[in-house]
Amino acid sequence: MQVSVKRDKLLTAVSHVTKAVSARTTIPILTGIKLKAGQEGLTLTASDSDVSIEVLIPTEEAGEWGVTVFQPGSIVLTARIFSEIVRKLSGEEIQISVDERLATLIRSGQAEFTINGMNAGDFPQLPHLEEDKIFSIQSDLLKTMLRQTVFAVSTSEMRPILTGIMWSLDQGQLKFVSTDSHRLAGRTAMVECIEELQFNNVVVPGKSCNELIKILDDDQTSVDIVVSENQILVKSKQILFYSRLLEGTYPDTARIIPQGSKTEVVVSTKDFLQSIERASLLSREGKSNVVRLLTMADGNVEISSNAPEIGKVMEIVRPLSLDGEELKISFNAKYMIEALRSLDSGEIRVSFTGAMSPFVIRPTEHDWILHLILPVRTY
Amino acid sequence: MQVSVKRDKLLTAVSHVTKAVSARTTIPILTGIKLKAGQEGLTLTASDSDVSIEVLIPTEEAGEWGVTVFQPGSIVLTARIFSEIVRKLSGEEIQISVDERLATLIRSGQAEFTINGMNAGDFPQLPHLEEDKIFSIQSDLLKTMLRQTVFAVSTSEMRPILTGIMWSLDQGQLKFVSTDSHRLAGRTAMVECIEELQFNNVVVPGKSCNELIKILDDDQTSVDIVVSENQILVKSKQILFYSRLLEGTYPDTARIIPQGSKTEVVVSTKDFLQSIERASLLSREGKSNVVRLLTMADGNVEISSNAPEIGKVMEIVRPLSLDGEELKISFNAKYMIEALRSLDSGEIRVSFTGAMSPFVIRPTEHDWILHLILPVRTY
Repeated sequence: MQVSVKRDKLLTAVSHVTKAVSARTTIPILTGIKLKAGQEGLTLTASDSDVSIEVLIPTEEAGEWGVTVFQPGSIVLTARIFSEIVRKLSGEEIQISVDERLATLIRSGQAEFTINGMNAGDFPQLPHLEEDKIFSIQSDLLKTMLRQTVFAVSTSEMRPILTGIMWSLDQGQLKFVSTDSHRLAGRTAMVECIEELQFNNVVVPGKSCNELIKILDDDQTSVDIVVSENQILVKSKQILFYSRLLEGTYPDTARIIPQGSKTEVVVSTKDFLQSIERASLLSREGKSNVVRLLTMADGNVEISSNAPEIGKVMEIVRPLSLDGEELKISFNAKYMIEALRSLDSGEIRVSFTGAMSPFVIRPTEHDWILHLILPVRTY
Repeated sequence: MQVSVKRDKLLTAVSHVTKAVSARTTIPILTGIKLKAGQEGLTLTASDSDVSIEVLIPTEEAGEWGVTVFQPGSIVLTARIFSEIVRKLSGEEIQISVDERLATLIRSGQAEFTINGMNAGDFPQLPHLEEDKIFSIQSDLLKTMLRQTVFAVSTSEMRPILTGIMWSLDQGQLKFVSTDSHRLAGRTAMVECIEELQFNNVVVPGKSCNELIKILDDDQTSVDIVVSENQILVKSKQILFYSRLLEGTYPDTARIIPQGSKTEVVVSTKDFLQSIERASLLSREGKSNVVRLLTMADGNVEISSNAPEIGKVMEIVRPLSLDGEELKISFNAKYMIEALRSLDSGEIRVSFTGAMSPFVIRPTEHDWILHLILPVRTY
C-alpha cells in the first residue's frame, strides 16, 4: 500500500473512527484502525464489539484533492499511536507506505515515522445489511432526538434492555423512548420513508447513541438509516456508523403514561429549572436529592428541600397558570433537572395525578416531547 | 452579622478564597470560609495548613456599591455549599444574616437558604508579618516568573526542600530557581525595593505557587511582597495571599551550571519543540521517553527515538547555527518539552559540554531565563 493524503482530511477521519476503538480489549487487532487504499480513495475502519465506524476519504471531493493512491492495499495501525502521529505532523500532506513485512513508513515535512503494522486480513469484517428497511432524517434532528432521550437510559445491567433507546417507526413517525424505570423520556418526529415501512423494538445501546451524537453534523444534511435484525447502520456523507442492537423485548411504556391530570402547572422552563437546581444544592449534599413541590392557595408553587445536617432551602415560583387539586409531591431533583435541561421549549406544562402517581412534563408549544417522572414517597 | 452584598463581587471573592480551602481535612472549621462584616466591608478568609487567602469586598469601590453592613459580626460557612449557593442565586444582591444560634439565612430573589454556620472564634488567626522585608513587582511579571519555574519543582517528598521554588533577592534582582535534580529552571527580573534589601533561601511550596498563579491578575498593577522567617505574603489589590515557607537549606545550584560550551545550537523554539514532541510520541509509549540528538556534518541536527515494540521516528531540524564539536546526546523528552513550552522567546541557544554533562538552554534575546537538563546515558 502506498498513498499520499491531505493531513486535515486524515485527521478528521481518524478522529471519527477512533470513537469505535475500544480502550480495553483483549483482541489486539481491535486496538487498531484499518486503512484500505483503493480506487475510491482511502477508507478507515475501526470496530469494538458494539460499534463499527467506517470513513472514506475520497480521491477528490468538490474539486478538492483528498488522496492519491499509488499502490492499493491495506494495513492495521495501532489507533492511539497513529492518531497522535497524524495530529503532531506539521506538513499539509502525509505519505504512508507499507512494506511486505508490514513496517509502515509515515512521512510529512522533515519527520519520518516507521511503525509496526498488523495484518488487515485479521481485522473483522463489517456486517452486511439488507437495505429493505431504510429511512432518511436530517442530521441535526437525529442528533437532537438522541440528546433528548439518551440521558434517561438505565445504567444498570440488571435489565440490559433498558440500557438502550427504543426506536420505532409507524406511518412515517419515528419515536425514541428511554427509561430507567424511575423516569422516562420520549421524542417523536416525522421522517422520509416509504409509507408501508414499520418497525418496533429496535433498541440501540445508549453508549452507541452517545458516540453517534458526537459524529453527527449539526446541519440539515440527510442521513440514511438502515435497520436489520440485529444491527443498525447510519450513513452520513462519507461516514458509515454501525451499531449492534440490544436483544430482548422492550417493555410496553405507553400504558404507564397517565391520561388526564388532577393538577396542572404551566411554568417557564428556565425559572423552574433554576429553582430546582438551587433546591437540589442541599439535598444533593444530604445524598437523597429529594425536592418537594407544594401548590399554594395564592396560585404560587413552593419548591423546598432540606438536609438535616446542613440546612434548608425554600423558594416561591410564580407559575403562568396553576389549576386543579392542591398537591404536595416529592421527586428526585436529578431526574427533573435532566429532563428540563434537555427541553428546547421556553414553557412547560406539568401534569400531576396525585402525590403517588407518575407525573408528565410536556412543552406547551408541541407534543413531540414527553417526560415522565415517578415521585418519591415522603409525605 | 447582617449584610447585603453585590452578588458578582461576592462570587469573585468566594472563588479566590476557595483556593485555600483544603478538600481533605480532619479539622472541620478549615472546610469553611470565614465571613467578617466590619467598617471596611465584608472580608472573606480561608486557610489550609499551607496557604491562607483573605479578600476584602469594600463597602464602595471606584464609586460602585459593594456591600452594606447593617450589623457587624462574623461566621464560618462550609465552603463547598456556600460557593455553590452564591453561584446559583439569580438576584443581583444577596442578603446574609446570622442569628444567635449561628443559623445563617441567605436570601436573593425568591430563594431563601438557611444553613448551619460555625463559630468564627474557632477559625485560625492569620499570621502577623513584620513588613521590614518588602518589595513590589508587576502582577503579570510575577505570574510569568512563577509559570516559567514552577513546572520544574520536584514532586517527590524524598527531598522536601526541592518541592518549592527558591526565591532570592540581591541588588534589586529577584531570582526564582527550581529543580528536581534532573533539570533546573531559573528566572530573574528587576524589582522595586530599597537598595539594601537582600534575602536568600526563601523557598515557597510549588503548590502555593500554583495557587498564586491562579489568583494573580494578568495586568501591570503593582503587587507588594512581604518576606518573613517562615511566611510570605503577597498583597494584590483587595487580596492577601499567605504561604508558609519550606524549612531547610536549598542546594547551591549556581555551581552546577556549566560555564562555556563545546557545542552550540541556535534554533527556532517552535520548530525544535514540535520535533521533540513528535519524537517523544513513540518513546513515551515505550515508557522511557528518551530522545536522541545528533549533530550532522552538513550543519543539521537529527532528532530520533525508537521504541522496540512500536517503531521508530527520525527527523531533521535545520538550526539557525551549529558550532563546535560533533555531538550525540540523549535526554528525557518531557524535561525538554516543558522547558521549551515555558519559554516566551522565538529563538533559543542550546549549549552542550559533552554527552555526559548537563546542557543549558537560553533565549538568544536576553539572559533572564535559563534551563538546565541532565542527559541520559545511552550512547
